[in-house]
Amino acid sequence: MTSTASESAVPPRAYEVVLKSVEADLRAGRLKMGDQLPGERSLAEMHGISRASVRDAIRILDAMGMVRTSTGSGPNSGAVVISNPAVGLSATLRLHVASRQLPVADIVESRVLLETWAAESADLGADPERSAKVLERTAELLKAMDAPGLDRDAFHDLDAKFHVLLSSLAGNAVIESMMESLRLSISDYVSESIEGEESWQEISSVLRTQHHGIHEAVAAGDGKEAARLLREHIEWFYSETQAK
Amino acid sequence: MTSTASESAVPPRAYEVVLKSVEADLRAGRLKMGDQLPGERSLAEMHGISRASVRDAIRILDAMGMVRTSTGSGPNSGAVVISNPAVGLSATLRLHVASRQLPVADIVESRVLLETWAAESADLGADPERSAKVLERTAELLKAMDAPGLDRDAFHDLDAKFHVLLSSLAGNAVIESMMESLRLSISDYVSESIEGEESWQEISSVLRTQHHGIHEAVAAGDGKEAARLLREHIEWFYSETQAK
Repeated sequence: MTSTASESAVPPRAYEVVLKSVEADLRAGRLKMGDQLPGERSLAEMHGISRASVRDAIRILDAMGMVRTSTGSGPNSGAVVISNPAVGLSATLRLHVASRQLPVADIVESRVLLETWAAESADLGADPERSAKVLERTAELLKAMDAPGLDRDAFHDLDAKFHVLLSSLAGNAVIESMMESLRLSISDYVSESIEGEESWQEISSVLRTQHHGIHEAVAAGDGKEAARLLREHIEWFYSETQAK
Repeated sequence: MTSTASESAVPPRAYEVVLKSVEADLRAGRLKMGDQLPGERSLAEMHGISRASVRDAIRILDAMGMVRTSTGSGPNSGAVVISNPAVGLSATLRLHVASRQLPVADIVESRVLLETWAAESADLGADPERSAKVLERTAELLKAMDAPGLDRDAFHDLDAKFHVLLSSLAGNAVIESMMESLRLSISDYVSESIEGEESWQEISSVLRTQHHGIHEAVAAGDGKEAARLLREHIEWFYSETQAK
């Protein structure tokens, strides 16, 4: 990891006061999910900075998955507070992977660590009703992935949802977000490396079988076996996509 | 984790073409660490967007720890490619922790997972020369932390470096960045919760002893013991800061 000591010498940017005040408002509960941020002009006046700097801050919050901005100027325009940590984290990870400072192999190893931990930590008994619902949804996702003629993008989409939902059984929102962001950060590399419809048919058929096995182990409460199958699944898939 | 299905309906922002092209240039090797991005005007012309949108993109890259921008207009002004994933990741994590969508307890649990994994995966023999250097540096950090009269901020700073350096022995840049970002994302919560010089003196004295134990286990190549001590260390510290 490259770190530059000189960064701390860079003067603070005007937009940072907005980020700090949004953070303070969130911590104090003055700002909640779904709330609208004050308008550009009020924020600029409030902090004594230019409207351009306010816009910088809003753009950054948007890229971090912290607000959703809509275009237009109606009463519903402006920035609304949301929380989509995986989007923000993956945007950052993607770029650092592209710069080769974070190797794809390290991303894969991290994914294995987080997903196997989640499988071993899944506690179906903590909230049986919720667990049953999650397993019902993952079973539906498997069914959808089994549909003949399903296109690749749709498969990847369902696949991602399957992994994230299963991991949610461990009840750690940070691990869940990091896991999703790792997957998103290298999804293009994976897509590009599978060339041709024929090899995709072969690969997806193996993936389907592996998913069913993982699902069964989780549903049976066998976290150790689920973790073993997940590791095999992730490592096999990446070795396939590396070889091509 | 809150996720909004409607996000995909939001039209792409003008600045995104710049992020995509920087990513593509990094992947293709056309852009490397230390390179300067083209100026605002050239980027605007290249992508057919406004200079304001180019500035948006540069700000976001800066917040992600992907470029360093300097003010002024000399030949050395402009954005230089760096890679500081931990800075970018922690900025995002901080805000989502502040919004209570990522609980502090989940951050702590994630830190334990990543640091104990790193301790167990440390391979001193893979590059004995590098390992020896790292252990020499961590020993120096411990000595510096033992200095009487050291102030709290200086202690936290050395403490962070100690943990990150030890984790680097596992050789996974992604885990290292995530670990550092987790720590940074909750450092304010921790600082604020320790009130008064007296309780800090007591806590720091325990931390020092724990650090020495962890260092010895790592240096002896006993990853299992190092992992056990790290878990104890992190969990004890957060229980102390929660109680106050």
